[in-house]
Amino acid sequence: MSVSSPHTSAAFSITVHLKIENRPGQFASVLTEIADLGGSLAEVSLISSTFHHNERLVTIAAHSEMHAHELQERLRSLPSVELISCIDDTFAIHRGGKLTVESRGSLENFDQLSRAYSPGVARVCTHIEKNPEAVFDYTIKKNTVAVISDGSAVLGLGNIGPRAAIPVMEGKAALFKQFANIDAFPICLETQDTEEIITTIKNISTVFGGINLEDISAPRCFEIERRLQAMLDIPVFHDDQHGTAVVVLAGMLNALKIVSKKIEDVKIVVNGFGAGGVACTRMLYEAGARNIIPCDSKGVVYRGRAAGMNAEKDEVLTFTNPDNEKGTLSDALKGADIFLGVSVPGAITRSDVISMSKDPIVFALANPIPEIIPGEIQDVARIIATGRSDYANQVNNVLCFPGIFRGALDAQARSITPAMKRAAAYAIADSISTSELREDNIIPSAFDPKVPALVAESVRRAALEG
Amino acid sequence: MSVSSPHTSAAFSITVHLKIENRPGQFASVLTEIADLGGSLAEVSLISSTFHHNERLVTIAAHSEMHAHELQERLRSLPSVELISCIDDTFAIHRGGKLTVESRGSLENFDQLSRAYSPGVARVCTHIEKNPEAVFDYTIKKNTVAVISDGSAVLGLGNIGPRAAIPVMEGKAALFKQFANIDAFPICLETQDTEEIITTIKNISTVFGGINLEDISAPRCFEIERRLQAMLDIPVFHDDQHGTAVVVLAGMLNALKIVSKKIEDVKIVVNGFGAGGVACTRMLYEAGARNIIPCDSKGVVYRGRAAGMNAEKDEVLTFTNPDNEKGTLSDALKGADIFLGVSVPGAITRSDVISMSKDPIVFALANPIPEIIPGEIQDVARIIATGRSDYANQVNNVLCFPGIFRGALDAQARSITPAMKRAAAYAIADSISTSELREDNIIPSAFDPKVPALVAESVRRAALEG
Repeated sequence: MSVSSPHTSAAFSITVHLKIENRPGQFASVLTEIADLGGSLAEVSLISSTFHHNERLVTIAAHSEMHAHELQERLRSLPSVELISCIDDTFAIHRGGKLTVESRGSLENFDQLSRAYSPGVARVCTHIEKNPEAVFDYTIKKNTVAVISDGSAVLGLGNIGPRAAIPVMEGKAALFKQFANIDAFPICLETQDTEEIITTIKNISTVFGGINLEDISAPRCFEIERRLQAMLDIPVFHDDQHGTAVVVLAGMLNALKIVSKKIEDVKIVVNGFGAGGVACTRMLYEAGARNIIPCDSKGVVYRGRAAGMNAEKDEVLTFTNPDNEKGTLSDALKGADIFLGVSVPGAITRSDVISMSKDPIVFALANPIPEIIPGEIQDVARIIATGRSDYANQVNNVLCFPGIFRGALDAQARSITPAMKRAAAYAIADSISTSELREDNIIPSAFDPKVPALVAESVRRAALEG
Repeated sequence: MSVSSPHTSAAFSITVHLKIENRPGQFASVLTEIADLGGSLAEVSLISSTFHHNERLVTIAAHSEMHAHELQERLRSLPSVELISCIDDTFAIHRGGKLTVESRGSLENFDQLSRAYSPGVARVCTHIEKNPEAVFDYTIKKNTVAVISDGSAVLGLGNIGPRAAIPVMEGKAALFKQFANIDAFPICLETQDTEEIITTIKNISTVFGGINLEDISAPRCFEIERRLQAMLDIPVFHDDQHGTAVVVLAGMLNALKIVSKKIEDVKIVVNGFGAGGVACTRMLYEAGARNIIPCDSKGVVYRGRAAGMNAEKDEVLTFTNPDNEKGTLSDALKGADIFLGVSVPGAITRSDVISMSKDPIVFALANPIPEIIPGEIQDVARIIATGRSDYANQVNNVLCFPGIFRGALDAQARSITPAMKRAAAYAIADSISTSELREDNIIPSAFDPKVPALVAESVRRAALEG
């Protein structure tokens, strides 16, 4: 496997069931074939062994579906190997869906039935009717979050529609459970009309203690979130905006500690006006940043610009670009301390980074391909963060949304306030101690087990103080 | 406890933690006090025992909240007993809600995350985008049902609103799991407007393989079900209508076997024009009944009646009351073979039953208090069924809805047809063998373990034949 081969990923792994002649060196030669083709061996298990043959399950990570197919065909072509079956591990774990709904109690006799259902349940219903707040005590509401999308901006796939979005929402719900023991349920909407989305979500909000909006395209997402939060008494949180912003702020706070700069003093260039870009900009401002230069595909956004403006940009300009700078993204980056890209692959160059101030901090969050590949600027950027798990400093929303909802639900908060979001960011940042802080360790691992509880507790306290 | 005391029920049970002097006869005297007050002892456990005291948890069924309170106060007043705590068992099992959402796979490392969520999930999304039917293979849709109510007609409680309805919908979802391994999720709607209900349910239908409508008041429920089924490609089933009708038909088929009458020949008086009454009437007709006399609170419904008519009644009259009989409910019952009440307590009298044909069959389904108390007519009615678990022949929808949805989901049916409903009714009826069939055993127990699978298989076959 040459050094320049693409990264293999578990996302493209296959598990092959092989029957191999039981002679010395046979399996080694199979592994050599896999390696020659650029496959990465993950797991091997021996499932049967006879005098003549061994049967093994072999999991191989590939770098694409095509590559996985090539690996499979190569194995099929080997004379001493019989390929009994091949499964695609990613499709396999999605088969039948990724969630179940379970009963918390047993329902195995008439006594249990008469308490959990008719006639006993009527007593609980009547109690809630007379005491509406008791819905938080005697129903799933207190621990249940809806993960809602209209399928209009799913991952980097764009508008794939509600059906195709379900696997993502199920995955998100699974993450809520895994990281915060929250019962989350996926809802995908058969409409992309703002008014219908708002009415529909309002109408189904009863059973939920929180609404996590997901993968709804900008600028509709801003209005949907704002209006829903105004009409509901439970938190409404668009994770693509605020989850990203919270983790970005956490990373920035730690990066600034390393370069010994204050957020009030630095120049931050933000490229991208999607859901994430706007939320990051606002959150950085609320955390103290006073010199943020917003950019879009047309360059710096400034007051008085004629082309490509909208209400959101006008609003952002009320607290950014204090000197009303103009020019290109490259112009803006000259002397800047921080670049934050929530935009597109290749948006900046190595020269841009070199033109920045001392100790450049680069957050290149376009996913899966960042604004600039970390390998190109390792020697000139002091700190680099991306959205990818295969580089250091991954901006992963899973650091935020489970804990922030856990804290909000525990406090029975009616909304997620800016103070609660800042509390989450500080909790994530502070989960890395001063002694652990390094250029390649400003953001904790998505699997750091202490983060969700720290975030939850900070957010809960901020909610109760607010 | 005198014979005339009201029935105690597990729905009103309390569990008291008692510390009782450790002397012979002390606990016996406590039990005597409980019995004197009419409480039924359920479970007793000894949780600690010392030379001086025993501590016990004692579960006592009462007949009302007031009664449970009296029992508690009596125990508190006993000199040799310390009442350490008292919990209401029904409220206790509802605390925190009755459902959880669980992840089917583990999400404990980056490989698992990269398959279940980004980036691997994108492959599955893209596959579904290109192959919309694959949503049944790779999401929860194939096994997931929404239990949806607007809270307008909850149990016998009336219009208690969506919040107070949640415990019932959670209970129903738990029953779906228990009896058919279906993942069901409760949705309570913050609207009782027909158009908004239809639009909302259509918009959230994506992730569900079926829609179980529940406790929506008539006549809106008819239109909501009809129009939703017309626009969706998954089954829409209003259980209060069809679940009841299926179990009623099952019971009738078995009752007619016992009295050796044919459904084509009998006169059936149906009292009540709610969701259940209309559906039962239609289903009995579809099963062959040709002399059904519908009644409401104004007596017999007939063509040309001036008062209290509506579209639903006009429609029912197109296939009922063949001789256009008029008069009171009592008039209609004279010489009738079957009375089916889905109406109100006390709707008929012992004299009414005596006036019926030979071997009267009485289905008195008003709940919790039937149209006539079985004890009043035991000697004159041949067969009696009610909606209550404490009498023989309980018409319990749980015999139907889990199996009917299981069969529909397994067949990937787009609707639940009359043939599928009839298949469910025959499967329930046939679950009681000829040798087991008796006047007090025409409907199987709600906990008969073979019923859901028999219903599912019959319905699945009917769906595939349809």
